[in-house]
Amino acid sequence: MSSTVLYMSMSLDGFIAGPNEGPDNGLGDGGDRLHEWAFPGAEGGDFDAAVERLRGVNRQIYDEMMSTGAVVAGRGTFEPAGGWGGDHHDGVPIFILSRNSAPAWAAGWPAVHYVSDLEAAVRDAKHAAGDKSVLVHGGSIAQRALTSGLLDELEIHLVPVLFGDGRRLFEHLGIEQRQLERIRVLEGDGGVTHLHYRVLR
Amino acid sequence: MSSTVLYMSMSLDGFIAGPNEGPDNGLGDGGDRLHEWAFPGAEGGDFDAAVERLRGVNRQIYDEMMSTGAVVAGRGTFEPAGGWGGDHHDGVPIFILSRNSAPAWAAGWPAVHYVSDLEAAVRDAKHAAGDKSVLVHGGSIAQRALTSGLLDELEIHLVPVLFGDGRRLFEHLGIEQRQLERIRVLEGDGGVTHLHYRVLR
Repeated sequence: MSSTVLYMSMSLDGFIAGPNEGPDNGLGDGGDRLHEWAFPGAEGGDFDAAVERLRGVNRQIYDEMMSTGAVVAGRGTFEPAGGWGGDHHDGVPIFILSRNSAPAWAAGWPAVHYVSDLEAAVRDAKHAAGDKSVLVHGGSIAQRALTSGLLDELEIHLVPVLFGDGRRLFEHLGIEQRQLERIRVLEGDGGVTHLHYRVLR
Repeated sequence: MSSTVLYMSMSLDGFIAGPNEGPDNGLGDGGDRLHEWAFPGAEGGDFDAAVERLRGVNRQIYDEMMSTGAVVAGRGTFEPAGGWGGDHHDGVPIFILSRNSAPAWAAGWPAVHYVSDLEAAVRDAKHAAGDKSVLVHGGSIAQRALTSGLLDELEIHLVPVLFGDGRRLFEHLGIEQRQLERIRVLEGDGGVTHLHYRVLR
């Protein structure tokens, strides 16, 4: 049975983007800092070459993320990223939660499915993923999936930085206390700590 | 040279107390959950006996905390805790940041010093601690010490739970991005992960 796994880079103080996010500032001021572990030395340049430099634990985590069998994200994650050119990795199906239909530039991509119902999206993504995991990505989708009990696991890349301000991963959850089971802790280069939890029911 | 070290238990979503904190609900609703690692099986009962049951990593961390040479806290931490009976551990000096003087019930304790200036409190605490660390404890004092560059290290006991609501550790920092250096990661029983960072200047 497939599991939904949230993969997110987060500062120690809980932020997934810096302040002043906008169309031309997708990660907010200084938000790049959260992703340096995955793209060492890229600094806005060649991300593919940076990924090639990944070694050890950070390589392992990146490869796990790229071995998932489907992607579920919100349009606020998908559209600013140019829809990943229609292929997040390996052509796996991508389910984008949105009240609207796909924009014209994304409507023709066969792997991309705009859906309005998170529960249906998760069901379809798990079906498509088979025995692989479903990659869940994005702040608002994480909050909705947690709130509605549709998130099975969390893989938090905890980055050694305090942002002080920005957008938080865990906000507006509106839940009672939710217990987690720690599955794995891995220390990556650059001080990033990869924390894997299962959400207990 | 002594270092100031913030020791705090925090939920994965960043809370150090549950919602509805009050005089008779010091940790907020469900806030006890954050401290179970240090007091296994106490459940509101005999905390001394619970501490005796600590083993392994959790024992190590607890012992480190109790080997510090001075304590700096806010009155919002000190007073609801009954001032720890005037002795947090081993009679080390306790500096309580407050605009007011000590309440009558605490005024006679020789180890307790009410001070109004955080910088002076840290300086005096470091002097008193000698080559030991200074234990910093409490949410608002953590925020003030971080903001004013007086915090040297953080030891976060990351508890595998989502609170959804309550009081956050990292809030109102009003800082620019602050880089940390990961010093140590230890996995304790009960799923608590002890993360030690140095604050870089």
